[in-house]
Amino acid sequence: MKNDRFLRALLRQPVDMTPIWIMRQAGRYLPEYREIRSRAKNFMTLCQTPELACEVTMQPLARFPLDAAILFSDILTIPDAMGLGLYFTEGEGPRFERPIRTKAQIDNLGVPDPNEDLRYVMDAVSLIRRELDGRVPLIGFSGSPWTLATYMIEGGTTKNFSQVKGLMFEQPDVMHSLLDKLAQTVTSYLNAQIAAGAQAVMIFDTWGGILTNRDYLAFSLNYMQKIVQGLTREYEGQRVPVILFTKEGNEWLEKIAATGCDALGLDWKLPIGEARKRVGDKVALQGNMDPCILYSSPERIREEVASILASFGNGNGHVFNLGHGIHPQIDPEHVKELVEAVHSLSAVYHQS
Amino acid sequence: MKNDRFLRALLRQPVDMTPIWIMRQAGRYLPEYREIRSRAKNFMTLCQTPELACEVTMQPLARFPLDAAILFSDILTIPDAMGLGLYFTEGEGPRFERPIRTKAQIDNLGVPDPNEDLRYVMDAVSLIRRELDGRVPLIGFSGSPWTLATYMIEGGTTKNFSQVKGLMFEQPDVMHSLLDKLAQTVTSYLNAQIAAGAQAVMIFDTWGGILTNRDYLAFSLNYMQKIVQGLTREYEGQRVPVILFTKEGNEWLEKIAATGCDALGLDWKLPIGEARKRVGDKVALQGNMDPCILYSSPERIREEVASILASFGNGNGHVFNLGHGIHPQIDPEHVKELVEAVHSLSAVYHQS
Repeated sequence: MKNDRFLRALLRQPVDMTPIWIMRQAGRYLPEYREIRSRAKNFMTLCQTPELACEVTMQPLARFPLDAAILFSDILTIPDAMGLGLYFTEGEGPRFERPIRTKAQIDNLGVPDPNEDLRYVMDAVSLIRRELDGRVPLIGFSGSPWTLATYMIEGGTTKNFSQVKGLMFEQPDVMHSLLDKLAQTVTSYLNAQIAAGAQAVMIFDTWGGILTNRDYLAFSLNYMQKIVQGLTREYEGQRVPVILFTKEGNEWLEKIAATGCDALGLDWKLPIGEARKRVGDKVALQGNMDPCILYSSPERIREEVASILASFGNGNGHVFNLGHGIHPQIDPEHVKELVEAVHSLSAVYHQS
Repeated sequence: MKNDRFLRALLRQPVDMTPIWIMRQAGRYLPEYREIRSRAKNFMTLCQTPELACEVTMQPLARFPLDAAILFSDILTIPDAMGLGLYFTEGEGPRFERPIRTKAQIDNLGVPDPNEDLRYVMDAVSLIRRELDGRVPLIGFSGSPWTLATYMIEGGTTKNFSQVKGLMFEQPDVMHSLLDKLAQTVTSYLNAQIAAGAQAVMIFDTWGGILTNRDYLAFSLNYMQKIVQGLTREYEGQRVPVILFTKEGNEWLEKIAATGCDALGLDWKLPIGEARKRVGDKVALQGNMDPCILYSSPERIREEVASILASFGNGNGHVFNLGHGIHPQIDPEHVKELVEAVHSLSAVYHQS
């Protein structure tokens, strides 16, 4: 591996400078992405065609000296493979043709075999690994069981989560049986990504943060913990780090850190230094710049980078990132400035 | 006052049972509200016609033994009075005809005189007080300066807050001058509501929770604190309690409590007992049931009420509420069950 800063930081080992990657770094803010997207039939064609997924994954690495690549895919590939029929509507996000609501529908859901039903993902992972040729590590990912269940039951994005919470409150056993099925599937899906070449994996718990404390622990974190326990943690002699990220989950950092994962994703609300104090030396931290800073001038971006690096302070275990995906309107030149600032301003924190 | 449980609880004085009111208790889940709304030209007609605002305010009190009434109005009356042209679109929420973006536009904004430019609000408050006839206290309210600024700059609801954060990051002085103007206006607006008859006031900081720690303190909490310091805290011999509510603001409870307010609004993510431990005996707490529980059966609602009451425990300073506004789809019979459960299950926590 030519640049293993990202993996080393996740394992809290010394690095020469703080590594950075950016959530949604392959995406709509890049003109070359928009070009390839405009030629594809739809968004899922990009995900399901390994050559296209690979090309899109590589695009930001050609522009910026990022320290990791992330598989271009969607968090909802699993429910699609379960037969729910994923599609995307302009401006409204993901939707399912056949949402599930009843115990019978949940009982009838099959558990996909990732190497068959999600073969296109594994082919993309292998192809990207070959294309990367050891330049930087490749991140695989999945949605969390609770987050997948939310979309599967609501049928798409929602503001009030009435259907999924209704089922959870009224028929908790039925919800648990769905989450259990999803946890099994996510485990085998991520293990297949690792076997195909993913060198770290991240679980996105986009909607855990809408739950009460009790419900978060029982219906979201509990299943992420099961996944962490079932993952391949070492592959071909290399440790495979696991990152958990619950959006709006700052209430539960200590509990997420206790699952046995290697790193936590952070949004921008909590200063990263405070998060570090709370989780101690248990896990690495990934984050936590407000994505809106990228609308600002290069000077303002640099200032914010400096402030976040100073908040984390000396020592190991920081992967720089935004606290959420980059917005489609951002000027790629500002991203260049961000990556440069993180590398150049962080070296001082890594002198031994 | 026939029932002053709500005011006593806000001031952490002994009560016979835990008082309850419900955010958006006058609203679309009530058929009688939908009926009157369908006859009005638009939503703002309801707010701007004191007789209609009064009728709508009283509707939930006719159905349920709630412990407070809240003025029927909108958080965006102030920017409307500043000339931005508030209107509502079906399914998209509030919008402004003339959003503001530049220093010149902000410099040109007038500071409204609440007794002239927002006379309709004061007339509604007086009328409701007369109509209530001492039955329960009346709550007045406003949006927080930061929340008002968000809508004024974005022109409506937004997902990524790029305009308002762009101005904040790039021209913090311009943003501060807008927030200062808004803080002055909110102060005189709430003081006018108090003079017209509001017996407690609440500030809704709907969008403070999208900020980093540093920005929240500087651009949101700072201005709420100025307002708290400028409010009429005693009127005609009665203490007028102030409630602050930052949605998604659990990171900052201690800091909000230190502003000098009397009570904090809580969403449902943090167990209320934990919040109580954190703010000690400094303030009362208002909340914190997940609004989605109201989709459930009466038994499940009762169970959740019992759990929240137990989490708060013995002693004074709890006003029961949802952690967010009630959803329009809720069955009013479930609200009846909720109010009954809070009153009957809480008495045991108030025995001396």
